[in-house]
Amino acid sequence: MDINQFVASSFGQWRSQRSAHHLIFSHFEAVQSVIDIVALAPDDPLVLSLCQDYDIDPQKISSPFRMSWEGQSDWNEDEPEELKGTTVLVPVPNLEFPNRGQLLRDRGYAETMPAIGNYHFTEDGTFVLLTSYDRAAAEEKIWFVNPNLRFRVSTIKTSDGTGVVTASFSSEIRSLNR
Amino acid sequence: MDINQFVASSFGQWRSQRSAHHLIFSHFEAVQSVIDIVALAPDDPLVLSLCQDYDIDPQKISSPFRMSWEGQSDWNEDEPEELKGTTVLVPVPNLEFPNRGQLLRDRGYAETMPAIGNYHFTEDGTFVLLTSYDRAAAEEKIWFVNPNLRFRVSTIKTSDGTGVVTASFSSEIRSLNR
Repeated sequence: MDINQFVASSFGQWRSQRSAHHLIFSHFEAVQSVIDIVALAPDDPLVLSLCQDYDIDPQKISSPFRMSWEGQSDWNEDEPEELKGTTVLVPVPNLEFPNRGQLLRDRGYAETMPAIGNYHFTEDGTFVLLTSYDRAAAEEKIWFVNPNLRFRVSTIKTSDGTGVVTASFSSEIRSLNR
Repeated sequence: MDINQFVASSFGQWRSQRSAHHLIFSHFEAVQSVIDIVALAPDDPLVLSLCQDYDIDPQKISSPFRMSWEGQSDWNEDEPEELKGTTVLVPVPNLEFPNRGQLLRDRGYAETMPAIGNYHFTEDGTFVLLTSYDRAAAEEKIWFVNPNLRFRVSTIKTSDGTGVVTASFSSEIRSLNR
């Protein structure tokens, strides 16, 4: 598995069930959302601008894409929270080790600010992304169970990496009737 | 990682949060439980009896253990379901490939009957167990985030392996005050 295959397998619309475990409080949060993943042109102004922010040569990027989501959380039972967002993601594969690289995004997962993470693929095709933020570190593991079902396990740690604050699991089913 | 290290790392009491995604109905189920994992002697009568059931030479087994759980599910909101059980597990490592083997258990995960599964460890230390039942197939992935936190992703498929019926995620935190 390389990043181009992985991104190509991810294009489309996905119906997502996400469970977050807030470990300190033993709290369960359930989120249902629709996720859209679409290709972006390598010379899209948003892509070029993100490359410029991180001083990355646009010749070195591969398979940039946009991810958008819209859903509802049951965090506050009386008033379901609407979740909506979009982010541009730009992989920068390592030239020497094609199963590794960097991932730029204009909006982070743990914090809503630009972020750069390091990814690699394990031998069984799991995509692993590590991102450090100012106050937190995030690890995401994503793998395909079959072409129409993917799983995502995310972990938010304190920035020194010692304490895991939130663990979440998403099952994402491809919407075929589009 | 080999099976002896993995089992030794698992001994103790764990506080578990489990989220099951019933994919066809987009239903979320939340389960909270306490899990106890204890070593068994290789010549424990229950271990020997399980070996006999599967015609396995007791000399070939390694690190047998017992897992017990007690918890509550929110499946029926009006009447939380009590979950309680115990199972004996007996690893039979492959002599040629120490990162692979078989796992006998006297009570299966998907169905309450004896089961034999095949396990292996991936390069990043994830334990992967595949078990076939009469009417279903189960895949479990278990990995340690740190010595006191482990994650478990379980998938129940139809027996022909095509349809994924349930996906579940457990975060298990070691109880230190024991």
